[in-house]
Amino acid sequence: MSKPSIPKGTRDFLPKEVMRRKYIFQTIEGVFQKYGYLPIETPTMETLETLTGKYGEEGDKLLFKVLNNGDYLDGASQEAFARKDYKALTPSISKRGLRYDLTVPFARFVVMYQNDISFPFKRYQIQPVWRADRPQKGRYQEFYQCDADVVGSDSLVYEAELMSIYHEVFKTLGLGVRIMINNRKILYGMAESAGIAAQFVDMTTAIDKLDKIGVDGLIKELMNRGLSEQAIEKIVDMLAIDKLEELDGLMESEIGKLGIKEVQETFDFLKDCGIHDLLFDISLARGLNYYTGCIFEVKVDTDKHEKISMGSIGGGGRYDNLTENFGLKGVSGVGISFGAERIYDVLDELKLFPDTIEKGVKILFCSFDAPSQAYAFKVVSTLRNQGIPSDIYPDFGKLNKQMKYADQLGIPYVAIIGEDEVHSSTVTYKNLVSGEQTTTSIEGLIEALNKI
Amino acid sequence: MSKPSIPKGTRDFLPKEVMRRKYIFQTIEGVFQKYGYLPIETPTMETLETLTGKYGEEGDKLLFKVLNNGDYLDGASQEAFARKDYKALTPSISKRGLRYDLTVPFARFVVMYQNDISFPFKRYQIQPVWRADRPQKGRYQEFYQCDADVVGSDSLVYEAELMSIYHEVFKTLGLGVRIMINNRKILYGMAESAGIAAQFVDMTTAIDKLDKIGVDGLIKELMNRGLSEQAIEKIVDMLAIDKLEELDGLMESEIGKLGIKEVQETFDFLKDCGIHDLLFDISLARGLNYYTGCIFEVKVDTDKHEKISMGSIGGGGRYDNLTENFGLKGVSGVGISFGAERIYDVLDELKLFPDTIEKGVKILFCSFDAPSQAYAFKVVSTLRNQGIPSDIYPDFGKLNKQMKYADQLGIPYVAIIGEDEVHSSTVTYKNLVSGEQTTTSIEGLIEALNKI
Repeated sequence: MSKPSIPKGTRDFLPKEVMRRKYIFQTIEGVFQKYGYLPIETPTMETLETLTGKYGEEGDKLLFKVLNNGDYLDGASQEAFARKDYKALTPSISKRGLRYDLTVPFARFVVMYQNDISFPFKRYQIQPVWRADRPQKGRYQEFYQCDADVVGSDSLVYEAELMSIYHEVFKTLGLGVRIMINNRKILYGMAESAGIAAQFVDMTTAIDKLDKIGVDGLIKELMNRGLSEQAIEKIVDMLAIDKLEELDGLMESEIGKLGIKEVQETFDFLKDCGIHDLLFDISLARGLNYYTGCIFEVKVDTDKHEKISMGSIGGGGRYDNLTENFGLKGVSGVGISFGAERIYDVLDELKLFPDTIEKGVKILFCSFDAPSQAYAFKVVSTLRNQGIPSDIYPDFGKLNKQMKYADQLGIPYVAIIGEDEVHSSTVTYKNLVSGEQTTTSIEGLIEALNKI
Repeated sequence: MSKPSIPKGTRDFLPKEVMRRKYIFQTIEGVFQKYGYLPIETPTMETLETLTGKYGEEGDKLLFKVLNNGDYLDGASQEAFARKDYKALTPSISKRGLRYDLTVPFARFVVMYQNDISFPFKRYQIQPVWRADRPQKGRYQEFYQCDADVVGSDSLVYEAELMSIYHEVFKTLGLGVRIMINNRKILYGMAESAGIAAQFVDMTTAIDKLDKIGVDGLIKELMNRGLSEQAIEKIVDMLAIDKLEELDGLMESEIGKLGIKEVQETFDFLKDCGIHDLLFDISLARGLNYYTGCIFEVKVDTDKHEKISMGSIGGGGRYDNLTENFGLKGVSGVGISFGAERIYDVLDELKLFPDTIEKGVKILFCSFDAPSQAYAFKVVSTLRNQGIPSDIYPDFGKLNKQMKYADQLGIPYVAIIGEDEVHSSTVTYKNLVSGEQTTTSIEGLIEALNKI
């Protein structure tokens, strides 16, 4: 057969990468747990009925669809095939798709298990998702999402708590960030104040691009979308404000004032909690139109990490209608997501992965002959029983080859076992960095290795 | 829309189940790491070229195939569709399938990264796999496999080490097991000794069923397969032997004698290592014909756990040709697998899951009014900063409702915060089991909770 390969847009992970990825996931998970979030998992495959229509037309195109098993042509639409209409054919040959995100499965889960869970339900979920995006640098067809959500309460305690989670996770990872907060009601209030409430979506879509196009670009875009000069002026004026009190004075909308109050209350909860990286940012819009309250986004703090030009590494917000699609109305929720793949790239670039996360063994046993290997095996068993990660080279003789193996694997110590050690029940071991060599009893070795 | 559901044969996992599953995976993973095995991960989707033909005809049928993205009918075989031949149509509309096991992806991985890894390469992999089996009790279409393998060495050190891993994992889980070892060479030697080497596969297939059909059934089956009475007698005689030395006397085959030597050497390594649950079992055959040396299987010890009637909860063996399919010859390997889903069911039935694995918060803060909630939020932040898992109820007032929530979530303590606590900077907390109530400083609370 030809050279083996994997599908475009997918990845294998070598041991070092797996350990680094686990470090990120476990850091996030540890914080989620400390804040009372509980884990759930949902299946890789969902019915296409669950997935379709939830991510817009563009999203539907990016769903991976799984062929029905067995003779899927039994029941396939002849007519759709004849006119080469794959979209019409698909439902007759595929009933399942791969999970596209964790939000829709979570909504389905909440509805299905509403009698088994307690509300407010605080859940986290760390699982891969699949999207048939065109593969490119930093964009994969299989990648992990790390989400925490609370459903069944509209209390702003959760907005505050989630901001605290962002703060703690990135602090633990050693990454300086800016956590931005805004509120969809504030944006709506801006539109109302400018007299263009009907063009709210036009406005937020344009503001969403502000980072890229600048104020001049924004003005141009809003003009193209038919807004009056007066309205645009009002919007641009408001966008320049970064203080909630000041904004409140200009805001001529009840809904807008409510949004300001919600953001203020979130800040109030966090007062004196030492969270200085949380900033109100009125120009934060978040493209997703299902948000109804506070919205969040996290970016790398480029004052602290100058080299990094990276988009958002986290985001979220409050939504009021998540479970409505599945028949459960009136459940408010709020959630955040960590962009684990981007966080990986940033930590890698900034060399922020601690050395300690690469968990290899501490010592490799090398031996000269069969009897010393048998003895070495027993000593290694003793070490492992004591909880010390250790290993034995599978062949004896050729000491150079054995030492080279330790070196390749980055194992810091080798034990060298020969006739003398077997007879005296000792171990001779060598620090591969310093070259220092010691002979000691097995107990002495355990003690020494436990100190490392 | 209709009631939400998930595809047949797939599962959602509620928090308690996720935590129990993690406990099993982490126990296994911890032991793998201690023995020097390194983690890898491979993508969910493999090319169908990689997967097809590796699992026999039956396996090919059970592969989940993913529709090509975009207009998959562009390039679809008209002719195959016209004669309703789905097997012929599939390659033209699907290029990817879901991972069916971890062994084939591992072989592909070894070949692709042979220049990046050091041999012997000790890897573990804990990931889900998918099979389109008919769903039934205890059999799912998505389930986890936990594998450890070493490739690039034929040393029996690894057979011994892997048996030690089995022993330690099940000891840690508190599950009494029987670890059975045999060798395909011994089985081949039996066939040679009985003069039926040409019918080796017939013989092993029949022996594989011995558990179910008994000796009489085995004799009948071997007769039906055309073996002579004399040959059958020889086989049945040898199958009654459980001592290696005794077997060596009867064995009239060089290959068979080599197999005995391999098993004996494995036992020799483990002498004095305290592994009493490892047994030589000559009737262990393992259906998979790719094994070439030692083979293993783990069953629940029904002397210790009488209630359990459960098939194998682990298995493995040595193979010589794993990577040959992908163009790399002469790489010997040996590996074991844990049947995590069955282990879950057994631990559940025997109530062997420790209570401590269900990591919820230790204390829930309840408050009477807005100012006390604001205070409670700060105290909770302090506790979380101290590493204490804790939570706050999102609304104030209605104390009963707040206490009920703690009860539903199994939270052992509640703090009740009112005006008094705010003014005196104290916390009043209650043990929900004993009913005992205490008022203390925040430092006092931290100290008390750290002791729990």
